[in-house]
Amino acid sequence: MNKVKIGSVGLGRLGLRHAVNIASRIQGAELAALCDVDGPKLAQTADRLGVRHRFTAFEDLIACKDIDAVVLVSPSALHTKQIKGALDAGKHVFSEKPLGVNASECKEAEKAVEARPDMVFMLGFMRRFDESYQYAHDKVVAGEIGRPVLFRAYSQDPEKFIAGSLAFGPHSGGEFLDMAVHDIDLARWFTGSEPETVYAIGGCYAHPEFADWKDGDNVSCLMKFKNETMVFLFAGRTAPHGYNVETEIIGTKGILRVASVPQKNLVEVLDEHGVRRECGENFLERFDTAYVNEVQEFANCIREGRKPEVTVYDGTRVSEIAYTCKAAFEQGVLLRFK
Amino acid sequence: MNKVKIGSVGLGRLGLRHAVNIASRIQGAELAALCDVDGPKLAQTADRLGVRHRFTAFEDLIACKDIDAVVLVSPSALHTKQIKGALDAGKHVFSEKPLGVNASECKEAEKAVEARPDMVFMLGFMRRFDESYQYAHDKVVAGEIGRPVLFRAYSQDPEKFIAGSLAFGPHSGGEFLDMAVHDIDLARWFTGSEPETVYAIGGCYAHPEFADWKDGDNVSCLMKFKNETMVFLFAGRTAPHGYNVETEIIGTKGILRVASVPQKNLVEVLDEHGVRRECGENFLERFDTAYVNEVQEFANCIREGRKPEVTVYDGTRVSEIAYTCKAAFEQGVLLRFK
Amino acid sequence: MNKVKIGSVGLGRLGLRHAVNIASRIQGAELAALCDVDGPKLAQTADRLGVRHRFTAFEDLIACKDIDAVVLVSPSALHTKQIKGALDAGKHVFSEKPLGVNASECKEAEKAVEARPDMVFMLGFMRRFDESYQYAHDKVVAGEIGRPVLFRAYSQDPEKFIAGSLAFGPHSGGEFLDMAVHDIDLARWFTGSEPETVYAIGGCYAHPEFADWKDGDNVSCLMKFKNETMVFLFAGRTAPHGYNVETEIIGTKGILRVASVPQKNLVEVLDEHGVRRECGENFLERFDTAYVNEVQEFANCIREGRKPEVTVYDGTRVSEIAYTCKAAFEQGVLLRFK
Amino acid sequence: MNKVKIGSVGLGRLGLRHAVNIASRIQGAELAALCDVDGPKLAQTADRLGVRHRFTAFEDLIACKDIDAVVLVSPSALHTKQIKGALDAGKHVFSEKPLGVNASECKEAEKAVEARPDMVFMLGFMRRFDESYQYAHDKVVAGEIGRPVLFRAYSQDPEKFIAGSLAFGPHSGGEFLDMAVHDIDLARWFTGSEPETVYAIGGCYAHPEFADWKDGDNVSCLMKFKNETMVFLFAGRTAPHGYNVETEIIGTKGILRVASVPQKNLVEVLDEHGVRRECGENFLERFDTAYVNEVQEFANCIREGRKPEVTVYDGTRVSEIAYTCKAAFEQGVLLRFK
Repeated sequence: MNKVKIGSVGLGRLGLRHAVNIASRIQGAELAALCDVDGPKLAQTADRLGVRHRFTAFEDLIACKDIDAVVLVSPSALHTKQIKGALDAGKHVFSEKPLGVNASECKEAEKAVEARPDMVFMLGFMRRFDESYQYAHDKVVAGEIGRPVLFRAYSQDPEKFIAGSLAFGPHSGGEFLDMAVHDIDLARWFTGSEPETVYAIGGCYAHPEFADWKDGDNVSCLMKFKNETMVFLFAGRTAPHGYNVETEIIGTKGILRVASVPQKNLVEVLDEHGVRRECGENFLERFDTAYVNEVQEFANCIREGRKPEVTVYDGTRVSEIAYTCKAAFEQGVLLRFK
Repeated sequence: MNKVKIGSVGLGRLGLRHAVNIASRIQGAELAALCDVDGPKLAQTADRLGVRHRFTAFEDLIACKDIDAVVLVSPSALHTKQIKGALDAGKHVFSEKPLGVNASECKEAEKAVEARPDMVFMLGFMRRFDESYQYAHDKVVAGEIGRPVLFRAYSQDPEKFIAGSLAFGPHSGGEFLDMAVHDIDLARWFTGSEPETVYAIGGCYAHPEFADWKDGDNVSCLMKFKNETMVFLFAGRTAPHGYNVETEIIGTKGILRVASVPQKNLVEVLDEHGVRRECGENFLERFDTAYVNEVQEFANCIREGRKPEVTVYDGTRVSEIAYTCKAAFEQGVLLRFK
Repeated sequence: MNKVKIGSVGLGRLGLRHAVNIASRIQGAELAALCDVDGPKLAQTADRLGVRHRFTAFEDLIACKDIDAVVLVSPSALHTKQIKGALDAGKHVFSEKPLGVNASECKEAEKAVEARPDMVFMLGFMRRFDESYQYAHDKVVAGEIGRPVLFRAYSQDPEKFIAGSLAFGPHSGGEFLDMAVHDIDLARWFTGSEPETVYAIGGCYAHPEFADWKDGDNVSCLMKFKNETMVFLFAGRTAPHGYNVETEIIGTKGILRVASVPQKNLVEVLDEHGVRRECGENFLERFDTAYVNEVQEFANCIREGRKPEVTVYDGTRVSEIAYTCKAAFEQGVLLRFK
Repeated sequence: MNKVKIGSVGLGRLGLRHAVNIASRIQGAELAALCDVDGPKLAQTADRLGVRHRFTAFEDLIACKDIDAVVLVSPSALHTKQIKGALDAGKHVFSEKPLGVNASECKEAEKAVEARPDMVFMLGFMRRFDESYQYAHDKVVAGEIGRPVLFRAYSQDPEKFIAGSLAFGPHSGGEFLDMAVHDIDLARWFTGSEPETVYAIGGCYAHPEFADWKDGDNVSCLMKFKNETMVFLFAGRTAPHGYNVETEIIGTKGILRVASVPQKNLVEVLDEHGVRRECGENFLERFDTAYVNEVQEFANCIREGRKPEVTVYDGTRVSEIAYTCKAAFEQGVLLRFK
């Protein structure tokens, strides 16, 4: 089959990364088009990557006959509308999370996907494509750790990027929607179960501004899942050491820890500070390969006529859970899931 | 001043350890008497350690003029009565936790302590005397990690000792009272605050028998403390790797992890299982030095006319918190502390 | 500039990896031709990777006008001849180590390179392109560890591949030439100096067969470099835990350790064997990205009219040092370098 | 049997530690006498530890009827003479290393020991009494790592104590005698073999003063042992991170690393420097328990009529090896052992 011709939408930090990856690191795909409202940045990037089509309007992109698929890395508020538009136009769709910014948008996205069963739709839960998470998941599925007892996940952004966190904060949906959402996906993936109850707490430990939009700079929640697994999630914006995404699955026969030391690379330094590992800074560094792998899987699905493991319903479910965590946090109560 | 003459009560596993420590590792103290209901074991141990007084009845021990202080390592149900008896008889008292098996016993112990302000009373929260916990606590007090955000603690017994856990289980008070109590003490010590709310969950993941006494083989709880610190505790009986007591304090400026790898010693093994650290088996191994240090502090307090940092009220408070965690777990609800 | 059209020679394990990398992971390059004596394998691989030219004879490859550069992953004994042939034919050359199998071959290769200053020649010292080694090297160059005192490097193949090591052994040139050669390159790169003396020892600790070709299954050497840096190299074929390539640079101000735990990924397992990291198996896994980066640099040099940092003289020098180590080992004496 | 009455000689840093240990941490022994040329320090220490006999002259100590044994922590130059004097006087002797400052002194010490087979003589190779080294040694003896291939040991003092190292340097005998001697002992203990050849190098990387007494601030040597084990030792005075004593035994079936991270305690710090372990500072901290254990074994041997595993001949042999390493270093040649 010919290469999948992809049009990538949005040239923010992650959008640019996806564009570069499609242009040079994805087999069986090519970056046929770029779309961004910022004309000069669009032109410069398209020139650099040798992209033949450039659009400032999403409508023009999906009208283009020379593309098979779109990769959406646009602002969250546009996701649902663009998913629907692209699918209606007969384009395969890879969208960064979230599916939509509220429950009704998620339902709308579901309908759009259901209306085009001939199209591949995939949501960007990239952690599932990280080799360490895959390795751990294989072990869990193979029964190597027995029955899951506790799933614990941390997602922490470094304090040194707090200015960005504060600027983006009011539009982020809060930490449960913006950060914990990946951990919610992992919790469901690793336990094969759904949450039953949640209690959520947190606060503004360093930056009172987060309270302005009913968020905290650090939050956590404890959930009981239907299969009895305990799930503890912690998300924070003030990590002193770096970008810290760590996950632990305690089972009755074994325990797995993924990235409990967020090492930047394989170098260990011994100096006046002791024996130390320097830490990574952000998601692009930590999940570099995972971002390639997920789009590779998207391209492979298109070429092989398959559907990805993650469905649009997973997207809806993860969002619903995050909303409920957020509600529990805001109200200070124990909530039960439907 | 002369050596403090100590009578040690109870020759179970920990009682024997305390006896040996007092006999040979505590400066300024001597093991003057032993007390245990098991006559032959008493005689044998006293002979081995060269102890001059032996009693099968606690009343006889406290009537002995030749002892200044007692160390209580008897069954929990006897603690309150023995604390009161010894203090009334004018003996300094070191008691293993718990202070009492219910709230009224704790109050009774408080009164006994209040009635003898001339006596030293100390409760066995040995973790506070572990050099790693002390080192971490010093850093927290010095402000090195900024404001505490999350306190996380695990206390796990190895699966290989499950038979003992099951046999002792019905009398243990459950995991919150038996295991998490040390973590509750640490949480208060490290945060300098008290809990406000608690949600607790868990279950029988490998051993359904624990449900017979309304316990789980693994449990956890999430508490919000008055100073907003989030506190997550996990206690389990099925650790696949060994005795695992680990504690993490996440602050706004730094994070401390105590014993995140429960290494048996400083040996690293590289073989067909990878690069690995073998793990310790039990509390006696992990807290060997702490058990010496706490009794040393008890002896020092007596000799120097000081009172220990931990008071009888700490004992009561920790027990109350553990009861509330247990109630939250049994009822499946969110509880607020008084 | 147009994409660099590369013809890759040799489809062994590493040759296949290079072919796949050029076909899909190198920017600004394309896999225009493949060459291997095994016709069916050649056809199958070329079909799979969509390669337009296929050659069973090297002469035909270098006669092809449609290629700009060759990547040599052929047997060591062919390197010198193919380097010369390709350069003479006006092709840029990337060759896996070694430059030649003896000193005169190395000189011949040097002459071939000198005769074509318009061509890019690069030798495959891939470790220099590993991000951890680069990170460490940057620190050394920046003076962060002060003056280098000791450079220590281990290169160990897993015992489980011993059959392959034994089969290849007689043709490998021995451990110093086959394995330590990368560490020799690193030692020169990190210290910026050259060896003055060497003492080398070793033996057949598990597999007496290695003695048949005057090799050991594990060997080591201690060298004093001209700038006084001590250099200790260890190479072995019987690693019980996996593929272990670790390097330590001890300086007066700091110490760097690269990959002191040869972790397979970011997963830590806690089970009956303790707390452990599973290990990687081979060089393709450990240096996956480095193999991409080095060929990327080769392509970049061609496109940008630059020469690589590593020169043909480095290839000669590293080989000479390895021969001397081998001689010291075989003779059991201390040797001085010229 | 009654307690062993010990007279401890020398109140330097280690001498004071031994005195305190004997006074309070050794079972079946008591600190009956102290001896030091510094009268005021002697009086103060003896008062603090409640010691009944005090001597400023060694002759008076060994004439005292009320002591059974001496512990020698005096300057190295006095060891042989004091060993002989004490044995002749019918006292059991524990001596810190070295046995003597040259070969003839070692022989003299041997004769003194041989002349009194009724006395216990023990040399302070404390590392053999460290629980991690013992654990590793047990595994080696049990065959768990197969045949030893490489023994690697580092002994590094922190740069921050360089003033002391420089002051003591001229009297230290050099790094091989002063520091590597413990590693030489370990190498013999772990391999059960003796060295055959040695090549030694090093230099003054940070402190040229060491050259004044033909020493280096960092040195190393590579030895081949009779059973073919390769032995690499490194000793340095400029460790940037702390007191670093690490040992690795690579076998054909497994590898053991003792203290490859010289962690101060079980606390891990995550802050702006990364994820780090703070390091210990000196031998008293690292080998605290080992110093107790070795004197405990000395006391036990006396009480049980046994002889220690380490003999006076081990002391001589280790010294001889260290002299040969030193000679190889000074002459820059390969030396063969007799």
